Amino acid sequence: MSKVLNEVLLANREYASGFDKADLPMPPGRQFAILTCMDARLDPAKYAGLAEGDAHVIRNAGGRASDDAIRSLVISYKLLGTREWFVIHHTDCGMETFTNEIMTDLLGSSLKTASVDASGWHDCCEGPGSTEGKYINWLTIKDQAESVLEDVVRIKSHALVPTDIPVYGYIYDVKSGSLIEVPAATEAGKVG
Amino acid sequence: MSKVLNEVLLANREYASGFDKADLPMPPGRQFAILTCMDARLDPAKYAGLAEGDAHVIRNAGGRASDDAIRSLVISYKLLGTREWFVIHHTDCGMETFTNEIMTDLLGSSLKTASVDASGWHDCCEGPGSTEGKYINWLTIKDQAESVLEDVVRIKSHALVPTDIPVYGYIYDVKSGSLIEVPAATEAGKVG
Repeated sequence: MSKVLNEVLLANREYASGFDKADLPMPPGRQFAILTCMDARLDPAKYAGLAEGDAHVIRNAGGRASDDAIRSLVISYKLLGTREWFVIHHTDCGMETFTNEIMTDLLGSSLKTASVDASGWHDCCEGPGSTEGKYINWLTIKDQAESVLEDVVRIKSHALVPTDIPVYGYIYDVKSGSLIEVPAATEAGKVG
Repeated sequence: MSKVLNEVLLANREYASGFDKADLPMPPGRQFAILTCMDARLDPAKYAGLAEGDAHVIRNAGGRASDDAIRSLVISYKLLGTREWFVIHHTDCGMETFTNEIMTDLLGSSLKTASVDASGWHDCCEGPGSTEGKYINWLTIKDQAESVLEDVVRIKSHALVPTDIPVYGYIYDVKSGSLIEVPAATEAGKVG
């Protein structure tokens, strides 16, 4: 068993031994959802004050309003009753460090660069000339305030998103732990 | 300002006031990632013992290996150095309570049912006859052990996923807080 797997299972045994949340209902008690980045430095339960049972948390690379995030948000509203949503990107995001072109090049090359290790890939993706990475839109970010605004606008204008739901746009600052509003996004996320 | 927004901002001010994580690096310190459900009852940091900076956390409705989850995992490995992944679904998941057909019907109907409120939708989606919901695969779940296995297999066989990464399959039990292994999934997620 790997060190990480062993540590996770030990931590889980500890958590389960003091577990007192058996009776929480399925729908989020505080009726809201947060869409945010997968970044390891972010703990939405801590930075937004969530206890188990409070809110849906959707996370992906960048905290982007991908089709899959919208699938999750629509289920969150329609079946599980959330009535307010947050889009929260963050400073120093990995998604600012590359572009679709760079990612395609990385995946099509066997060169090792900075934090990149190209060993161990399927045959298709190793060696110069592979184009597999081209078929994914990596949803990179140039500017956080812009990406938050874009994503709030995309969510609000989606055909399956109800008109009566407010969407708030924020940036989490990894240096201070603070949430900073993106006023244009919150404005775009208003009801009506 | 809504009650929820006010509460989130107050909790964040509290978190930021004691913040001592300003120097965490971008790559996850413990070099792993967890793909799990958005469910409000799940707190991956608590159930798996994560501190800020430890691991990537990807969450969507069901914890499914959607294209977007795979986008996030490939970035997690390739640019940010994770080397082990977990797929963790859970008992009593909302994704077991409906099917693509039911969701399409709900979105195409103005009838109110159990936990569903059909008011406030864009014109396209209100009233019988709308078919907008048909164009999304909702990735519902019939059986948790099966969905975990399916998702591990999908991840391991994806063209952009490196062959040398182990993927562990678990179910989180919302009644006990425990992680329960899905041996067939962990077996399918083995290296080599």
